[in-house]
Amino acid sequence: MAPHTPQRSPRPGEPGARLDVAAVSCPVPLTGSDRILLGHGSGGKMTAELIARCFLPAFQNDALLKRDDQAVIDLAGVRMAFTTDSYVVTPLFFPGGDIGDLAVNGTVNDLAMAGAQPLYLSAAFILEEGFLLADLERIVASMRKAAEAAGVLFVTGDTKVVERGKADGCFITTTGLGLIAHDRTISADRARPGDVVILSGPIAEHGMAIMAARADLGLETPVASDSAALHRMVLDMLGTGADIHCLRDPTRGGVATALNELAQQSGVGVVLDEAAITVREPVRGVCELLGLDPLYVANEGKLLAVVPRADTKRVLAAMQRHPEGREARVVGEVIADTARLVVLKTTVGGRRIVDMLQGEQLPRIC
Amino acid sequence: MAPHTPQRSPRPGEPGARLDVAAVSCPVPLTGSDRILLGHGSGGKMTAELIARCFLPAFQNDALLKRDDQAVIDLAGVRMAFTTDSYVVTPLFFPGGDIGDLAVNGTVNDLAMAGAQPLYLSAAFILEEGFLLADLERIVASMRKAAEAAGVLFVTGDTKVVERGKADGCFITTTGLGLIAHDRTISADRARPGDVVILSGPIAEHGMAIMAARADLGLETPVASDSAALHRMVLDMLGTGADIHCLRDPTRGGVATALNELAQQSGVGVVLDEAAITVREPVRGVCELLGLDPLYVANEGKLLAVVPRADTKRVLAAMQRHPEGREARVVGEVIADTARLVVLKTTVGGRRIVDMLQGEQLPRIC
Repeated sequence: MAPHTPQRSPRPGEPGARLDVAAVSCPVPLTGSDRILLGHGSGGKMTAELIARCFLPAFQNDALLKRDDQAVIDLAGVRMAFTTDSYVVTPLFFPGGDIGDLAVNGTVNDLAMAGAQPLYLSAAFILEEGFLLADLERIVASMRKAAEAAGVLFVTGDTKVVERGKADGCFITTTGLGLIAHDRTISADRARPGDVVILSGPIAEHGMAIMAARADLGLETPVASDSAALHRMVLDMLGTGADIHCLRDPTRGGVATALNELAQQSGVGVVLDEAAITVREPVRGVCELLGLDPLYVANEGKLLAVVPRADTKRVLAAMQRHPEGREARVVGEVIADTARLVVLKTTVGGRRIVDMLQGEQLPRIC
Repeated sequence: MAPHTPQRSPRPGEPGARLDVAAVSCPVPLTGSDRILLGHGSGGKMTAELIARCFLPAFQNDALLKRDDQAVIDLAGVRMAFTTDSYVVTPLFFPGGDIGDLAVNGTVNDLAMAGAQPLYLSAAFILEEGFLLADLERIVASMRKAAEAAGVLFVTGDTKVVERGKADGCFITTTGLGLIAHDRTISADRARPGDVVILSGPIAEHGMAIMAARADLGLETPVASDSAALHRMVLDMLGTGADIHCLRDPTRGGVATALNELAQQSGVGVVLDEAAITVREPVRGVCELLGLDPLYVANEGKLLAVVPRADTKRVLAAMQRHPEGREARVVGEVIADTARLVVLKTTVGGRRIVDMLQGEQLPRIC
């Protein structure tokens, strides 16, 4: 389990894959089901299929069709970002955070990925009868702290309670509103051949913190979530004047899924350099123990930026001035590819296709 | 069960109350519990206590302290309304609507109650593994229809899936954003002695439609929800130039709770005229059968307006031009009262205090 070891567990469906019950939280489901499956909430291929089948045809409009994690809207001439996310993470409290700061940072980051200054949040709670008030107060205190740190205000909210057994403790939906003070377009469809892909730091920390907390692995060094707000770093990246094409925080489905979405939306290919992607111990150890590929594991305080090669240096310099971007580096490049593939150059000189997440590896990670 | 019959079932704690297990879905809980109870989601006194204990101290700011159902915010000089609500209604489909149109109309109405033009919505789904895709498609179609009717766009969304038994089919959280094109202040703290209270139509229809659907009462005339968007009527009311002081849609907790909130926030009393409040058959019949006071039952297409007496006529005329306000009438008046009581003048000439909803009469009504 040395750092940067090239071995990875094959995923289901890959050559060499063996059935490893412990490794696969939820097997790749049969397609064509008439029911909702856990994979529909994975943020991967099945989520994309559900959106394409069910939501896009009903709610067709330009903002939604961009398939970004936030809408950019115009209200009386003011350009703003608007985004919503439900948080159903289990356990509610984990090393490095809890559902409360996750619900703040996750939504703040979705605003940041449009280059917006996050300003206002709403919070809607669905609580299960019997949930401990002390736990609710702890979550709310954590939301307050995260909101203060990010400089956003909770201005409106709602609380519903459902009977025991009809929810799981506490679900939180936060919606955010941010001001876009520039006139640039940052969107998943703007990646161009020749652009570079920058990753802000080591990956897979949030997902592995949750999995380690669930499995009670008794780790000597606990794995902590990377939950953090990224908007100040993004505003500094924009402040360099660089022409940032795409920004995406690789949450559900991880770096692999986020890059596949960019490739799909922009009609390009991406070549990733495995040697440039950092997975810190003990995160790598937990991934190997559970048979999970870190490229598919959720992050909650990282971003991917696609920028013209000429802008690389100033964007990296801006990122590295922030604790959240100290380890930022170029991890890949955008190429012309009508097949829109994401390909990994492995440390041993091979190449493998990195597809979108299939099924659901890690249910209820956020 | 003649219309306007003066008899009402006494509520728990009132003189004359007997223990009627069928009438009380959830008894008034002991206070001081260290756990979340169904009553915390009632929209009544326990919800207010939870907000005062848990949310207000953490998230103190001017918008939240107004205790309106929406925040009025300023973003780069543009005044807008921002509101969120989770919908956990059961059953998901009921006469007159379903969770989908409820999630649109409810949030549109919270924007309308600030005198805003609703423009953009977000939708966040929490789905239970195994939920039928056909039901999801039916709900989404209903959301689309309601959004089109109200002239609002769904521009962003999210989907999470939780394991079987960890939710109840489908929960939806919608968040709305609307433009406030006037410079007036409509808020729960603006009721003044001498103002009149206008109610837009017959009450208790939504709550009784849900209860009848649950109980399968085999009614000859089904009770249908009044779910409807009210923003066009509100914009016409504002267009008269009347100085509208308060607007509130009496959802959870009903007319009684909404008026108590206005009385509390404004530091006034309210005298209601029972004879002026319409409860249509068979709604009244179902209320009596279940031992419920219609004043506490949720509405989803009605509003209460508090306006200066001099503006009564033009506000009523504007309301009556809309199908949603055809039966609008004055149902009470605001008086000076340091005790901030809501008092009902009954049809037999008596007076009784109408308190906020205690505990939870009708869990998961919206």
